[in-house]
This record gives sequence, C-alpha cells and structure tokens, in this order.
Amino acid sequence: MKIGIYGYGNLGRGIESAAKQNSDVELIAVFTRRDPETVKTITGVPVYSAGDILDFKDKIDVLIICGGSATDLPEMTPALAANFNVVDSFDTHAKIPEHFTNVDNAAKSAGKIALISAGWDPGMFSLNRLYASAILPEGSDYTFWGKGISQGHSDAIRRIDGVLDARQYTVPIESALDAVRSGSNPELTTREKHLRECYVVAKEGADLARIEKEIKTMPNYFADYDTTVNFISLEELKRDHSELPHGGFVIRTGKTGFNKEHNHTIEYSLKLDSNPEFTGSAIVAFARAINRMHSRGDTGCKTVFDIAPADLSVLSGEELRKKML
Amino acid sequence: MKIGIYGYGNLGRGIESAAKQNSDVELIAVFTRRDPETVKTITGVPVYSAGDILDFKDKIDVLIICGGSATDLPEMTPALAANFNVVDSFDTHAKIPEHFTNVDNAAKSAGKIALISAGWDPGMFSLNRLYASAILPEGSDYTFWGKGISQGHSDAIRRIDGVLDARQYTVPIESALDAVRSGSNPELTTREKHLRECYVVAKEGADLARIEKEIKTMPNYFADYDTTVNFISLEELKRDHSELPHGGFVIRTGKTGFNKEHNHTIEYSLKLDSNPEFTGSAIVAFARAINRMHSRGDTGCKTVFDIAPADLSVLSGEELRKKML
Repeated sequence: MKIGIYGYGNLGRGIESAAKQNSDVELIAVFTRRDPETVKTITGVPVYSAGDILDFKDKIDVLIICGGSATDLPEMTPALAANFNVVDSFDTHAKIPEHFTNVDNAAKSAGKIALISAGWDPGMFSLNRLYASAILPEGSDYTFWGKGISQGHSDAIRRIDGVLDARQYTVPIESALDAVRSGSNPELTTREKHLRECYVVAKEGADLARIEKEIKTMPNYFADYDTTVNFISLEELKRDHSELPHGGFVIRTGKTGFNKEHNHTIEYSLKLDSNPEFTGSAIVAFARAINRMHSRGDTGCKTVFDIAPADLSVLSGEELRKKML
Repeated sequence: MKIGIYGYGNLGRGIESAAKQNSDVELIAVFTRRDPETVKTITGVPVYSAGDILDFKDKIDVLIICGGSATDLPEMTPALAANFNVVDSFDTHAKIPEHFTNVDNAAKSAGKIALISAGWDPGMFSLNRLYASAILPEGSDYTFWGKGISQGHSDAIRRIDGVLDARQYTVPIESALDAVRSGSNPELTTREKHLRECYVVAKEGADLARIEKEIKTMPNYFADYDTTVNFISLEELKRDHSELPHGGFVIRTGKTGFNKEHNHTIEYSLKLDSNPEFTGSAIVAFARAINRMHSRGDTGCKTVFDIAPADLSVLSGEELRKKML
C-alpha cells in the first residue's frame, strides 16, 4: 500500500514512524503548505508542495490528512476525497455528523473511500464505547483522559500575558476511577473526574500571582477543575516536559440477570508515551482497512464503526483465526 | 429479530436473560435433547424437542447453539447451519480452523450465515488481541484469566475418588500483571501467571491428604501451578461458591518511534459476576450483526473479526456517529 501524508507536524511524523514499522506500507510523499525546501522529513521521504497533490492522483492508495479539526479538515477532507482515498482524525465531536455528510458526498461522487475521525479518541475509545454498550444495554459509560498533555490547554496558558511557555497535564482522579469500577454508578462532576496540572515558564519580572489567577479562573479550560500551577525554568520545561504522553480509560458498568442481580465491568485503557506516534500507528492500520475495502468496491465515508477488524491486520483471515481467535 | 436457543443449560439461560434486555430481540423457542416436558424456562418461553427443530425453519432468524465444544458443536453447528443462520461459542482454540471450514461449507451451500466462537474468549478478548497487534506491530501480547470459576478444572476435581463437589478459581497473579503493564516484556512461566484455588467438599471419611495430593499433582490441570486446596462443607460451598464469576485481562505492550524510544500499553479487562450471562449478552449482540449481514446477502462462516462493530448496536449509523464516536 502506497500512502502519502498531507501536513507534516507531530501527527505527520507519527505516521512516518508508523509506516516504517509496517512492511506492507510504503510512504511515498509528504505534502506541505509551507515551502517544501524548508521541510525535511526524518526518514528522507520527499516533500512536495500541497499545490502539487493532483500529480499524485494515481500514485497514492491512501492519503492521510494531518490538519487541525477547527478550520483545516472541514475544508481539506471533502476536497481531497474528490481525488484520493483519505483518512483524517477529525475530533470536533459535535460537528462529526456534518463533516461525515460533506465527506460522504465528495467521496461517493468520485468513487473514493474516506475514513474520518480515526485515532484513539475518536477512534479506539469510540469502538470500546460501542462494543461495551452493545453487550451491556443496561449500564453507564465513563471516559477519563490522561495522564497526558493537552495541547489545547497548553496553548491557552501560552496566550496569557507574561507566559513564555507552558505544558498542561490532564490527570484522571484515581478515587473517581475506583468509584466507577466498583459498579456504584456514580454521578461525577467535571471537578471530580479530572485534575489539571500546569507547568509554566514566566517571562522575567512577570506577576506570577496574576498569571496563576488567570489560569485558575479561565472559563471552560480551568475554572471548573482543581488546577495546580507550577512555575519552572525553561530548562526544566525542556528537560522534564518535552514529550507528548497521553492515555485514558473507557469503562462501562452494567447489569444482567432476570432480576438484574449481576454486575459487570468492561474497561479499556491506554498508557501512551507518545500521543502522535500512537495515533499515527492506529491511523496506518485503519488506512490498510479502507484500502482493502476500496479494492472490494466500497466507496463513501466510513468511521471506525464500519471497519471489520480483520481488515486492520496484515495477517490473512486464516492466520488470524489460527493465532488470535 | 426472532431467535431460538438450542440447548438449555447455563449459557442458554444467559441468552434468555439477555434477550429480555434487548427490545429488538424476541426469543421464540428453546430446543432441548431432553424430554421437553421436564424443562421449564425462566421466562416461560416454550420448550420443544431438538428433533422438531426443522418445523421452525422459517420462524427463526438466528439460532443460538449452546452445546459443548468437545463433542456437541463440531457436529451440531455444521448440521444446523444447513437450515438456519447460527451462532456458537466454540472454544477449542486448536480446532477452530477445522470447525470454520466445516461450518463455512454447510452455511454457504444453504445460503445461510454462521458465526463461530462468539463470547469473550474467544470473542471480545480475540478482538482486543487483533486491534492491539494491528496498531502496535512491534510488541507482545499477554492474556490473563480470572479471578473466576473454571468449569473444566472444577469437573476434574469432582472426578477424584472421595470428592462430593468442588469449585476451582483461576486467579491471575498481580505481580505478573504489574510486570507486564510496566512494558518490561517479561517471559512468564505458567506458574508465574496464574494461581489455582480449590474449594472441595469431601465425602465422609475420605482421605483428605490423598485428595489434596491428587489435585496438586494432576497433570495439565494443576501440576504446573501453585495450587491451594481448601476443604469446606457442602453448606459453605452452596453459600459462598454458587455463582459463576469470571473475567480477565488482555494486555499488549509495544514500541514506536524512529529509535523505538516510546512505550505504549493497551489493556482490556473484564470483571464479570456471571460468566454465562455476560457471554449470552455478547452472543445476542453478535446474533443481531449476522442477522443484518444475512439480510444484506452475506453467507458462509464468520468470526468476530469479520463483523463491522456498527452491526452489533441497536442504534443506527447516524445515532452512533452522534453519540459514541
């Protein structure tokens, strides 16, 4: 399978790394909106201007689009699906139905296939919510995130006057996880589920008390959480907080039995040293699946819910039944 | 969806209970090889002789076969797949390829669809092994079972001279789980992964020391494990060990990165008060999926690997994308 990467940031590099680990995958080109002369890939894969993408119409089996969900993907994915089989990791949950319709129309008209919202959330976490709720129709779902870096929250801190750089960790609260696992079906407030830990590098002479207050009272991002703010040096930030770990938990508890007398807990968890590399690895597996589906004549927009798991694996159906069933 | 249950033991009752929890599922008949007069269902569903099954050829969408893997299912599933869409929970891992071929031939000739090896292991655990290995191609898989009752091991103890009744719990060893989760990729012996806890009711005057020795030295079942034997009264057995809990863990650890510098852990776990009710609940969801696949023209033998997750849910694709993605 020949793949291309459209957009070369953290996720693009994660896909480049994943392509190296999958012997049936060949990464043939990276496309950028920047000047291609200024972009060098880690494995030496050639870089082209995004404007030249149509020259590759017959050279790429699946194009993986690595753009932002806010403004890039709503435009890029439908446009590119008119000429390529594509995968994106669109993660604005509320706008998924609209994005699905736009991509579906574009892909169907062109006889192409597209997969939106691939990765781990949306992605593997969504799949686990679906499997668990299908098996235990009477129950409750809980999703916890972390411990991990939230790029959105880190960016929000960086925009505060007097802040040079910052990292924000989302931390699930252990006692809340335990309450959920017990099957007691707790109703949890935002504050009870996650903590927010901030590591902030302030500019020289900045008013630290004001910065801390601005962080802790920021609506939507921090006001509803117990937030800790730690001021550290730039050296400490680079030494201790330069990685992008993440992870989380999807838990469903439910009851069965003629008198609902039996409790069950289904738990799926991820502990990831590198969020973009894990996301890239998941996306490459899903790209394999849609490439196979397209070769069987399938077109239009798909989500992870529409992918038969066997299509994700490099192994044949026969090998899978023998080794993994 | 109209379903039938073929074989009315613990699993059959688990499916009867699950059918009650799924509004789109109607259980219309139970079939037994015993005298139907002697079998009463919990919800009052009528019981028929297994010999009358062909009278229901056009009245059942999916027939769920609840037989043993050793001798029942290898015969039953291919025979019944010649006239019905069927699901079984065949769990003799080594014989799955042969069973698949036999069922596939029968179902394809008849234009029917069949799903073999549904449940949680094989079943949900298999799916998690597949997803995790597709995402992290360079890594290791570990499966732990328990804490839970193993019927096979309990039966093996009951066959010992002087034993009136017995329950055996398979217990995963916490330190082994922690070593796996750490990503240290340990090589674990059988003894290091699981303990075996036995609760035994001896006949009056039986030689307890001999029974304990026979259990602990029994090849395949106990000799390779650290086994504890507790002699209890029949009253204690009934009071404290009459349920059928089970569960377990599927863990994959793997590396990503241009220098394999990042570790990842994917963990799926189940904690089940009732093994047969959870298995029955999973099977009902998979029965829904194959019924939909058959109505779209699909035939032949399938496994859980071939089922697109969306087909398991009572929700539409649109609802799933809105609520669960």
